[in-house]
Amino acid sequence: MVNISESLDSLIEELSSLPQIGRKTARRLAMFIIKQPKEKVEKLSKSLIDVKEKIKFCRICCNITEDDICKICSSQKRNRNLICVVEDPQDVYAIEKTNEFKGLYHVLHGRISPLDGIGPEDIKIRELLGRFDENKFNRIEELILALNPTVEGETTILYLQKLLKPLDIKISRIARGLPVGSDLEFADEVTLAKAIEGRISL
Amino acid sequence: MVNISESLDSLIEELSSLPQIGRKTARRLAMFIIKQPKEKVEKLSKSLIDVKEKIKFCRICCNITEDDICKICSSQKRNRNLICVVEDPQDVYAIEKTNEFKGLYHVLHGRISPLDGIGPEDIKIRELLGRFDENKFNRIEELILALNPTVEGETTILYLQKLLKPLDIKISRIARGLPVGSDLEFADEVTLAKAIEGRISL
Repeated sequence: MVNISESLDSLIEELSSLPQIGRKTARRLAMFIIKQPKEKVEKLSKSLIDVKEKIKFCRICCNITEDDICKICSSQKRNRNLICVVEDPQDVYAIEKTNEFKGLYHVLHGRISPLDGIGPEDIKIRELLGRFDENKFNRIEELILALNPTVEGETTILYLQKLLKPLDIKISRIARGLPVGSDLEFADEVTLAKAIEGRISL
Repeated sequence: MVNISESLDSLIEELSSLPQIGRKTARRLAMFIIKQPKEKVEKLSKSLIDVKEKIKFCRICCNITEDDICKICSSQKRNRNLICVVEDPQDVYAIEKTNEFKGLYHVLHGRISPLDGIGPEDIKIRELLGRFDENKFNRIEELILALNPTVEGETTILYLQKLLKPLDIKISRIARGLPVGSDLEFADEVTLAKAIEGRISL
């Protein structure tokens, strides 16, 4: 077996470490990249670095942003008494697309999953609790738990429900209009909007 | 709809221009990249540039290589009287994996496809003919056409067969042991080895 090129092998190696990219897809992508004009490849290469350098977590909601405080948290048009808790930044994107929700978000960056060794301290729950102390002027009145309808999501909801009970605020969860076991990120706008509408008080 | 980050949008844009990567996969990949350690992202970014800068086409067989002449063409262990013609560099890789073929290669970088506006002059056929002039000492005795068993592959075989007839060399094609309409790159080693073994004289 002849080794064609070390730089090619190393690119294939890097690409196949990405999620959902197997070795054969990685090889196809690498071949495609070889055939691309140089400027195009440089642009892709640069945007990888750019994203890594510019993106950070919002100090308030932990969503990804290029600023200290994200555009949603700093917007004057949003309802500051209502917070929607989601697992991942993609979920914020999915909910924003429905145009149904006008409150703020909180991104946990994961879900409690004992099997994967992910406990409450590994996701942004401490930061969520912190928001109740800070917001003396904009008291949080309602929390919508928009977690994925999976075992891990349910576990996280149960944990948060117990943890937040003493705070005496309205806590709801989005309706299980989403097919159980599926992924919030891939729900269509209408289903997701309906689920937000039909949230159930806990 | 709030625009989260321009650098993120631009990365998603770049990623979704890759083959087999849709917008949602691109977004997932971008999110994965954000979560990666900086060194890991820099490595991926660098290997993209590296590949583009280092990879060129072998002066003899047109396969991709980091040198002027690729490792197969410059190897003393290969049978220089036998050339296997393939469509893409991936196909060389696939055939090398069978360990059945010990000759040289010629990579056409495509196939004749009138519907896509790809004619004989758009692929490396001129370079293939050139090899018959140059190799006065290592006379090419046999040509194996290992093209994909698709309409375009068959068209290319027919064209090459007519073009090379005057040269009076043995021309064969790999056996259609491969399921017709499929892709050579994805064939398993045994099937591909059998196909090379059972080649049919034209």
